[in-house]
Parts: sequence; structure tokens; C-alpha cells
Amino acid sequence: MKIMRARYSIILLLFTALPISAIVEFQDGQPVEMQLTTDTPLESETPDKMASPIGKSSAPDGFTNNAFGDEVCERLEFGQAMPVITTQEDPLPSWNEGPSKKAIIEFVMRITTEGSPDFVPMAERIATFDNDGTLWAEQPIYFQLAFALDRVKILAPQHAEWNEKEPFASLLKGDLKAVLAGGEPAIFEILMATHAGMTTQEFENIVKEWISSARHPKTGRLYTEMVYEPMLELLAYLRSSGFKIFIVSGGGIEFMRPWAEKVYGIPAEQIVGSSIKTKYEIRDGRPVLVRLPEMNFYDDKAGKPIGIHSHIGRRPIAAFGNSDGDLEMLQWTAAGIGPRFMLIVHHTDAEREWAYDRKSSIGRLDKALDEAKAKGWTIVSIKDDWKRVFPFGAK
Amino acid sequence: MKIMRARYSIILLLFTALPISAIVEFQDGQPVEMQLTTDTPLESETPDKMASPIGKSSAPDGFTNNAFGDEVCERLEFGQAMPVITTQEDPLPSWNEGPSKKAIIEFVMRITTEGSPDFVPMAERIATFDNDGTLWAEQPIYFQLAFALDRVKILAPQHAEWNEKEPFASLLKGDLKAVLAGGEPAIFEILMATHAGMTTQEFENIVKEWISSARHPKTGRLYTEMVYEPMLELLAYLRSSGFKIFIVSGGGIEFMRPWAEKVYGIPAEQIVGSSIKTKYEIRDGRPVLVRLPEMNFYDDKAGKPIGIHSHIGRRPIAAFGNSDGDLEMLQWTAAGIGPRFMLIVHHTDAEREWAYDRKSSIGRLDKALDEAKAKGWTIVSIKDDWKRVFPFGAK
Repeated sequence: MKIMRARYSIILLLFTALPISAIVEFQDGQPVEMQLTTDTPLESETPDKMASPIGKSSAPDGFTNNAFGDEVCERLEFGQAMPVITTQEDPLPSWNEGPSKKAIIEFVMRITTEGSPDFVPMAERIATFDNDGTLWAEQPIYFQLAFALDRVKILAPQHAEWNEKEPFASLLKGDLKAVLAGGEPAIFEILMATHAGMTTQEFENIVKEWISSARHPKTGRLYTEMVYEPMLELLAYLRSSGFKIFIVSGGGIEFMRPWAEKVYGIPAEQIVGSSIKTKYEIRDGRPVLVRLPEMNFYDDKAGKPIGIHSHIGRRPIAAFGNSDGDLEMLQWTAAGIGPRFMLIVHHTDAEREWAYDRKSSIGRLDKALDEAKAKGWTIVSIKDDWKRVFPFGAK
Repeated sequence: MKIMRARYSIILLLFTALPISAIVEFQDGQPVEMQLTTDTPLESETPDKMASPIGKSSAPDGFTNNAFGDEVCERLEFGQAMPVITTQEDPLPSWNEGPSKKAIIEFVMRITTEGSPDFVPMAERIATFDNDGTLWAEQPIYFQLAFALDRVKILAPQHAEWNEKEPFASLLKGDLKAVLAGGEPAIFEILMATHAGMTTQEFENIVKEWISSARHPKTGRLYTEMVYEPMLELLAYLRSSGFKIFIVSGGGIEFMRPWAEKVYGIPAEQIVGSSIKTKYEIRDGRPVLVRLPEMNFYDDKAGKPIGIHSHIGRRPIAAFGNSDGDLEMLQWTAAGIGPRFMLIVHHTDAEREWAYDRKSSIGRLDKALDEAKAKGWTIVSIKDDWKRVFPFGAK
């Protein structure tokens, strides 16, 4: 296996973020489930079998709640009047009244009012959203990391050599401390063993299978239910206001694409993320793309503006994040000419979700919090600004 | 200057394709204009000052000819009936009746007829187009190469050292043979000196300035007028049939974006191309992306399916090219499940355009022509299939 030394950052991001205090509970060859056993759901309502949060959110009058609405129309050539957002309607019913909600709505009004000096033509209404911690939760570990750990367990029977070979042997024994002692190469090997070596189609199938069945350890919900209801409303509001929405995530682009359209209404071509290299091959007379154990692009921190420029080719006028990994995306967005909107989701609600910021190993929010305060960016406090957090649970 | 040895192919593609018989005419420090002087226009009509071909093409009844139509509508959430393409209308008036035109229209009918087993939902109607030789001309040299040569001349006064330093000294003396004798490193240095070292915004401005003023050596037309009228009609036809259209070109992504939206109606985020690396920096308190002299991605041949997968994340159902550089894109498209359409533009018209294929150093069409014939892909003969070639000239 070819080990590239150039780009370990994403791996470090994923793996060194593991809270060690949690890891030591892993035992008896069950590194994930032992620790991440479902306990009391965060919200007390009985879980239902909701496959997708879309369709559950309550759309305000006058708003289409079809997250796929842009699919219906975006290829047509015929002009059409924009839906008028009046102040009588509430596009964000899960948001408490307050400065955050007010700032969002005022920005949208400002850039969509024709004749206003701040009017922005539709083609330039680009909004970029981080995913982990911004659109869906990221505790107790990044969900893609849960996927990787699950995959090691699933693949272990086909890899008898892993019982003797590090870092897999330690991982399968539940000794994640020993795994981490192997440093970057060990971590890289786990990531590549679970994300590379198959065709892109095979990987898509693997992700679809996992995402439709794996359960969050804390709530027992599907991971796709661990999305933030207020953010789904925000996506719908921006979409209905003429925005084209992109995900710009440090997570793997091919990990997100199989489910993001269904969950967020964001199509594959509007997702930007980290990637590994692929290789074009003819197998049995048919072309395939094979995923290689080599980093291609690291879409976090300074990588986010680069990913935005590469994929979108336009500067966003609005950007949404939750951690220091989003700082450069927010700076890049803020530096454009004309009206801009920068927002940070601050995880302040230990009861309904999690509370963490400057000292968290996952989703650390430190420098970006300072800069947001200094520059007057909108800081959303989940505890104060959101009436509800997830699509499930009490209203 | 950092020289990466990994990816010279694109440079070779651009530069070794130069017909030497043409090059030797370069003299007296005027390597480009001496050779590429305007002579008799290909078509005899007096040139007019058309900035963009859009709006000139004759739209059939019932068709919007606004290439930016999708910009107006694509962000809206409201569903809308598709425009009905009836057989009474001719969506491709610049195409002669024949098997190529028939195949295009039959394919579009087939996949847009609701209730048909071959119906394709709109989200999956992805079409990819090569650019050089498919949407605009590529003779006598790739237009991006003409740009690079023009840039060396323009930059020379700021680089006194170039008078002594190869490969610039030879290039400025018009001795391109000596330049080519320097091999790949010499060629790479010219490309990087003209495409790297500035911010992305600066490069965009440079391209815009060039594309709005530089003239094609044969016709005296702006390069953006050297687009194929029948292909503009095809773009409009597909767009009005619910397709999302992407350019997938071996050319530079940042070379195409500044003008492709105006000329083709294809927005920046739907352009895939070759790229160099960029670096995020704060300059004078403002973030910029600096273009580095290092290849990032080579979007030609086997790179095209990789670029498609990376940017679009869906397999096209229709692909359009003209050279061996498009073969893998066509194979990748053909290998999908369900109805597919693969088309090759064959340059067969020495009178109205150029005639070249298997032995051309530019836009070589050899293996892909054989495969197209073997697999029954549509092969367009410009001489036979197109009533007119460019938007200017006699109808």
C-alpha cells in the first residue's frame, strides 16, 4: 500500500480528535459498540422510523417545503418571477426571535429586493455550508469516523492478517491507545483500508448501506436524523430566495454524496469535500474508477476557499460554519465586494445537544469565535436561538 | 520556480501540438503575430463587431434563445411544466437533415417522454461537452496557447532577464524550434510564467482583457466568435429539454470560466478543466488565492472521467467530443445503465473550417473514431451535417 506523507491533516483531524477518556472504554474486540452504546435519547420522545428529515419540517405558508424544488425547475429556460418573501410569513419557525434570526432575514431581504443598491443577481447567490456540526451533529465522534470504525469490524473476517497486523490488531482488541501510538501512518492505514481499494460505485453502495442502518450511539437515531431542523429550514429559505447551496466540508465528498441529496436537497454536483485519488481502469470490458489510498484534496481550513474556487468558481455571498476549520471559508466570503453574510453555529446546549467550543478536540471553535465577535459575524447559540434542535423530539 | 515532474502531459498537449511548418515563420521577435496574421476570412461576409454569438443565432419558434435562461430559473422551488418539443418545431435549424440530427432528436425525445421506459428524471440529465474542437475551433493552434504566447510578449518588458534566459529568449526571437529543443521543462516554464504567479482575480482579469480583444489569425474574429453555431443550438436544445450542461475540457478551468457563461450560457460552477494549484494567503489584510506553478489536475483522456466524478458526482447520459482526448469520457458515459448518447464532431470541412483527424497534432481523432464506428456512436461530419459553421458568415 502506497503511503503518501503529504496530507495527513485530514486523518489527524478525524482520528486524533477522538476523546481519549472515551476510548479507554473500548474492550473485548468491540471497539465501537462497547463505547458507543445507545443510552438515553437526547430528547425523550419515542424514536420513530423516519428515514429522512425532509418532509417533517413544518413549512410556513407560502413556502414550498420540497427540498428538491430546484431540481424541478433549474434546467428550464423560462424566466419567472421570484417568490415574494413578506414579513407576514415566518420562514424560520424553529428559530427563536432574536438577533440571529433577524440578521438572517434582513440579509435575505436586502439582497433580494429589486432596485435596492444591495440587490444581488440570482447567479451570484451562492451560499456554502459546512456539514459536521453545522448541518448535522458531530459528537461524540465525527460520523464518518464511526463509519470507518464500523468498516474495520465488518472487514476483519476477510482480513485474518489484521489479527496480527497493527494498527488493526489493537483496534480489533479495542485498544485504541495503542493504535494512536502508531501515529499518522497507523491512522492513515485504517482510513485507507476502509475508504480505498474499491471502485467508486462499490464505495457508494457501502456508504448507502451504512447510512441507512447505522445508529447514533447517544440517540439511537439514524445518522441522517441527526440533522438540525433550524438549518433545514434555513436551507429551504435560502433556496426559495434564489440561492444555489453548496456543502463545503472537511468530510469526504464521496461519503456525503450518497445521502446528501435526500437529506438536504443538495445534489451531488453541489457538494465539495475532501477526496482521495481515483484511477480510471477498464475491468471486464467496462470502465471503472478505482479509489486509491492516496489523498487528493484536503477541504478544510485554507483548503475550503481553494475547494470553493475550484468547484464553484464564484465567491459565496453567504457562508455557514461552526469551527475553526471554517474560518478561512468565512474570511474568503467576507472579503468579497457587496453584501455578505457569515454565520457560526455555537454549540451551547448541553441538554438538547452538546456544549463545546474552545477546548473540544472535535469541532474546536476558538479563533473563529474571536474573529466572529471582532467582525460582527452572526453567532448562533443553539441554546438560545433554536426552539428545537433535531427533526425528532418535542417541539 | 518549482518544477513538478509529474504532469507534463497537458503542456505537451498544448505545445508539442504546434505545427512546426507554421512555427518557422515566426521572426524578428514577433513570434505570434508574424505567423498568425489575419488573412482571408474563412467565410466571406464582412466581419462585424459581435461581442458574443449569443443572440445572433436564429432560435426556432417555441425556443428561447437566451443562453442564460437557466440562470433566471434554476434557483426557484416551483415546479413548472417542461417545454414540449414537438416534431413541428426544429430545434436544430443549422443542422442538415440526416442521421446525426435524427439521432440527437430521437435521443432527447426518448429520455424526456414521461411514461416511456427510457424516461430519465431531470436530475440525471447530465450532458458533458469538450470545448476545443467541439464547442469552438482549435486551429491553427489551441486558443489557450495563443493566449500564452501573447502573454509572453506582453510580459517581456517587465522581464529584461528573458532576453538572456531560455526558453524566453528564443521565443521572443521567434525561434520556437529552439524553445521546443528545451523539452518539457522549457515548455512548462512558459506556461507557468503566463498562467501562475498572480492571484486568481488577477488571472481572471488578464483572461477577460485578452478574450475581449485578441483576434483569430485566420478570420480576424474574436475567439469567442469562433464557436460552432450548430453546437450553440444543441446546447440550447438540451437545456430546454431539462439537461444540466457541463464543459469538461483539457483546457484550463480558469481560462474558460471568465467567458464561458457569456458565450455558452454555462455558469462557472458547471465547468471542469485542467488546473494548477493555488495557495490561500492574507495580503494586506485581505485573503487571496495565489496561482502556483504546479499542476493540480490534468483533465484530459483518463482524467476526464475523474474530473466528471469529482466535480459532478453523477455519470453523464450524453457526452460530446471531437478527439482522442475525449475517448475515456465517452466510454465512461456509454458504460452507464439506461439510455446514453455519445457524439463525436469530425472536422471534415477544409473550406468552411478545417479538415483533420488521425494525423493532426492538434485535436487528433484516431482511436476514438475507430471506437465510435465500432460502437455506433454518432459521428458528425461538419461538411455534411452542418448548414453553417460559425455564427458569422453566410447562412
